[in-house]
Amino acid sequence: MTAGLSAMEERNMSRVKAFQPDWFEGELPRKSFRAILKWGDPKAYKHPNRALYHLMKQTFRLDDDWFRHPRDMGMDIVPEATPSRLDQEHVASLTAIVGADNAHTDTWNRLRVAYGKTMIDLARLRAGIIENLPDIVLWPRSRADLRSIVDYCEHHRIPVYIYGGGSSVTRGVEAVKGGVSLDMRVHLNKVISFDERNHTISVEAGMSGPELEQVLRHAPATLGATRAYTCGHLPQSFEYSVVGGWTVTRGAGQNSTYYGKIEDIVLAQDYVCPGSRDLRTREFPAAANGPDLDQLMMGSEGAFGILYGVTLKLRMYMPENTRRYSYIFRDWDSAKEAAREVMQGEFGLPSVFRLSDPEESDVALKLYGVDGTVLDSYMTARGYKPGERCLMLGTADGEKGFARHVQHMVARVCRRHGAMSTTGLVTRSWEHGRFRDPYMREDLQDFGIMIDTLECSVNWTNLEAVHSGVRSYCHSRPDTICMTHMSHFYPQGCNLYFIFIARIDSLDEYLAYQSGILDNIQKYGATMSHHHGIGKAFAPWLEGDVGPEAMAVYRALKHHFDPHNVMNPGGTLALDLPDGDRRLPKGE
Amino acid sequence: MTAGLSAMEERNMSRVKAFQPDWFEGELPRKSFRAILKWGDPKAYKHPNRALYHLMKQTFRLDDDWFRHPRDMGMDIVPEATPSRLDQEHVASLTAIVGADNAHTDTWNRLRVAYGKTMIDLARLRAGIIENLPDIVLWPRSRADLRSIVDYCEHHRIPVYIYGGGSSVTRGVEAVKGGVSLDMRVHLNKVISFDERNHTISVEAGMSGPELEQVLRHAPATLGATRAYTCGHLPQSFEYSVVGGWTVTRGAGQNSTYYGKIEDIVLAQDYVCPGSRDLRTREFPAAANGPDLDQLMMGSEGAFGILYGVTLKLRMYMPENTRRYSYIFRDWDSAKEAAREVMQGEFGLPSVFRLSDPEESDVALKLYGVDGTVLDSYMTARGYKPGERCLMLGTADGEKGFARHVQHMVARVCRRHGAMSTTGLVTRSWEHGRFRDPYMREDLQDFGIMIDTLECSVNWTNLEAVHSGVRSYCHSRPDTICMTHMSHFYPQGCNLYFIFIARIDSLDEYLAYQSGILDNIQKYGATMSHHHGIGKAFAPWLEGDVGPEAMAVYRALKHHFDPHNVMNPGGTLALDLPDGDRRLPKGE
Repeated sequence: MTAGLSAMEERNMSRVKAFQPDWFEGELPRKSFRAILKWGDPKAYKHPNRALYHLMKQTFRLDDDWFRHPRDMGMDIVPEATPSRLDQEHVASLTAIVGADNAHTDTWNRLRVAYGKTMIDLARLRAGIIENLPDIVLWPRSRADLRSIVDYCEHHRIPVYIYGGGSSVTRGVEAVKGGVSLDMRVHLNKVISFDERNHTISVEAGMSGPELEQVLRHAPATLGATRAYTCGHLPQSFEYSVVGGWTVTRGAGQNSTYYGKIEDIVLAQDYVCPGSRDLRTREFPAAANGPDLDQLMMGSEGAFGILYGVTLKLRMYMPENTRRYSYIFRDWDSAKEAAREVMQGEFGLPSVFRLSDPEESDVALKLYGVDGTVLDSYMTARGYKPGERCLMLGTADGEKGFARHVQHMVARVCRRHGAMSTTGLVTRSWEHGRFRDPYMREDLQDFGIMIDTLECSVNWTNLEAVHSGVRSYCHSRPDTICMTHMSHFYPQGCNLYFIFIARIDSLDEYLAYQSGILDNIQKYGATMSHHHGIGKAFAPWLEGDVGPEAMAVYRALKHHFDPHNVMNPGGTLALDLPDGDRRLPKGE
Repeated sequence: MTAGLSAMEERNMSRVKAFQPDWFEGELPRKSFRAILKWGDPKAYKHPNRALYHLMKQTFRLDDDWFRHPRDMGMDIVPEATPSRLDQEHVASLTAIVGADNAHTDTWNRLRVAYGKTMIDLARLRAGIIENLPDIVLWPRSRADLRSIVDYCEHHRIPVYIYGGGSSVTRGVEAVKGGVSLDMRVHLNKVISFDERNHTISVEAGMSGPELEQVLRHAPATLGATRAYTCGHLPQSFEYSVVGGWTVTRGAGQNSTYYGKIEDIVLAQDYVCPGSRDLRTREFPAAANGPDLDQLMMGSEGAFGILYGVTLKLRMYMPENTRRYSYIFRDWDSAKEAAREVMQGEFGLPSVFRLSDPEESDVALKLYGVDGTVLDSYMTARGYKPGERCLMLGTADGEKGFARHVQHMVARVCRRHGAMSTTGLVTRSWEHGRFRDPYMREDLQDFGIMIDTLECSVNWTNLEAVHSGVRSYCHSRPDTICMTHMSHFYPQGCNLYFIFIARIDSLDEYLAYQSGILDNIQKYGATMSHHHGIGKAFAPWLEGDVGPEAMAVYRALKHHFDPHNVMNPGGTLALDLPDGDRRLPKGE
């Protein structure tokens, strides 16, 4: 989303006197559904600004009155309704491994780790739907705990699920077969080792993004280092994601154009697998000794084993060098060409780099308060017209001269394609909201408005077919906003990210619509996921994406690592989906 | 090797009047062993210069007389001595697939593709040893031919070997179980498709390095492109290696610090596997849809299937932007630190980047004619002393301003570590000989002197243990030259490359010595190969490198792709080696 607003812009907007909904900021009832579904910090909020509110009213043909009556807010207390189906003997044995304080069979603790954060998860929580619960939640304290749990569960054929930051949008963590869910955040969140000479840090998989960056950015104090470091991995879910989740799903940070996706940042991994297998890779920057096992385990999404530890490559933390820029282009074609030239120019890569299509650019300029101002008129007069113009924004990181040169060369390419600079202030506005936009989902949903995202990977040649084909499908549904941007760029293509906002009343309607979008992403030739992973939700499309022979390899690996299918069973990566069946297996 | 000499330097050297051996430049007897063992162009030679000749005499305590009598030159004609063991029915069927012109059972044609180019291969050819021959050599014309051959061979359990450029130094191509060898160079050397928008080219696996670069550097004429391109992949074996060999062994070019190893350059692959499996990956720059199959197939070394086609990422060919530099450091420690700082400096990466240790630096300066000159005295006086000083050389590629900035920052780092510039001329000398040094091996071997190389991957933290440990072993053998350099750099470490020159009389003595070096590479913690692959020669060390669980994954993949073990059987990646057995399986 690009709905960030600087304080200045908020002040500009406040001149418009109008009704504003009473967005919820109350106390979250203890052990309520709302306490689970709310994004992030229990006490933090970010509400839609007036421009977004106005846009929604207009698009969805709603009046102020609609926004006086929130519904399905999920304020009910989670009932103690779902008994654990696990034998008492198993409960006792598993509890003995981690200790009584770290084993939980009550519904509240099980529901907390049952769902991720995609629309279907939030909608179920709002509706009080409790399904696919794990039977017991364990908080492992050590690698040895993981080993014991996996050994026990494999022996007794008890499914094992892994819960990291909880921000999955693919039903990746959902315990559709019941069994055990491991909450990695509670104890497995520590630094294992730090090697300043190698520029690496090894951490436990449950360490969160902010915990990691806190340690690195204060490395002289926390690690006795000579300077500050960063991993540069900052996904939108940064605050509520963990290193292990990034790794097993092949995630990407918003600065990945410079820092790389997580698979470029990970140097080594340590997995606890069934069959008493411990798969540890070694910390070498390159090798020619057979298939690359790091690249084979990343993307396994918990289906081959439990990721205990990750060694990450570090960069120097040098925010003082960051350069910011933004440009407005006359049209989508010239903007795309400029982006491609930047990526193929060999002058160094931008860090953040984003390009919004005309629909998203219009929304963004509305939200940033540019719509209807003198700047708007000036842009229109110079040929940057609403409905056609496109907004590009970005940063350059790295050593000072490098960042300056990248900024300089981006400017040169953009000017050659007729773009006008809109300065680094737009980028600052975006940065201001970059991790906070997810907070707005609750407000929208309180009034029956669904916002969700899908992303895919394209190359330059099929980019336009995917963009226009998917958007055409999205708009086949009336009164739907579909904003698209390119982010995470490469010399050979980019990530294409669709944000759709609609009034959708039922979960079935939502699922049918989402399914249609996925069909069209596939039909027009994109690969199904650039960085969200596949999980159980997108698994039915996986074979159509990678082909039957790749699926056969995935299944052969699954059979090798987990012949009894105890690791994240029930659809993950379509490993145990019957051929041709697109429905998610249900719990027994 | 760093024995390149510019014409100017040759002139300087020629002032010294002395005996020079009568290095062989005669006609290669037709169908002789020599015609197979000779490196590269049958009519091209590069002989040791006077400095190298003097060094060898001195080190190995030889006199001019020794160099009057070459021996074991392999001038004999290959005898028609080894009948094909394949049933006539199979010969007929396989011949029917490719046509009579493309099927060969004579010893000469079989021996031509039997060995690679490591010392054991050359020594066997010199000694007239014919072993491990394929029973038939096929020259497939198309993907369909490959499919038919694999289907037939799998059905009849006939081993299939693949011959690319023939420059393997790991016994990778050797048909130790007999059967079929496919020579990919003859027909499968064409461009499949070119996508200028994506900056990609797809080629058949048998296309050689020079063929590929010829097409790309003249892309306006050859491909109708708007400009010239390059892959930037220039291994020392460039002239006698093919795209498929680079890919399946995870090779690296000498400019890999900027362009990446082949696994960074490959975007997609197309394999013909047993079991009627066609594994084609898709051309996306990134994805989060399960394990990365490209990274799983690269490194499979022909044991999972036959690589038919490869899609490669392109860069702009801009030799006019290349910057060259070289520096001399006072000692190994300061030089290593400087190299590490360059790689971790985030100002852009060098392209060629090499750092020689004191022993190699002394040899290099001797060969470049610096030894004993005024420059030598000047360096020594300033504290850059023989036996301690280290030579770094490199280039910067990319867009003009980028390359200039990299060069500028490298200079800054080197000066901070007390280095003195020795200018880009040294780099030009190195470039002059970069692909031609292998030609000298014949001359040395003609007089009983063995030169060979081993390489491994280290991180910064274990670099010194590996360097000193391996060198210590190498020097435990008297009168042995062991030169070491770092090349192929990363922020987390580098490739460490050992060149040893010795008077070794027997193959067994050579193998025992090589084995000891490999033991020590492993003992001191390096990973066994950075870019030569594993093949059959290094396979016995693979489990000690990657560990038993990684080996189990490799074997599970082998079982999936090739359950009847027809693809490159007999030791490749230790997939069919009995546990603990370090001997190469022999043919029946």
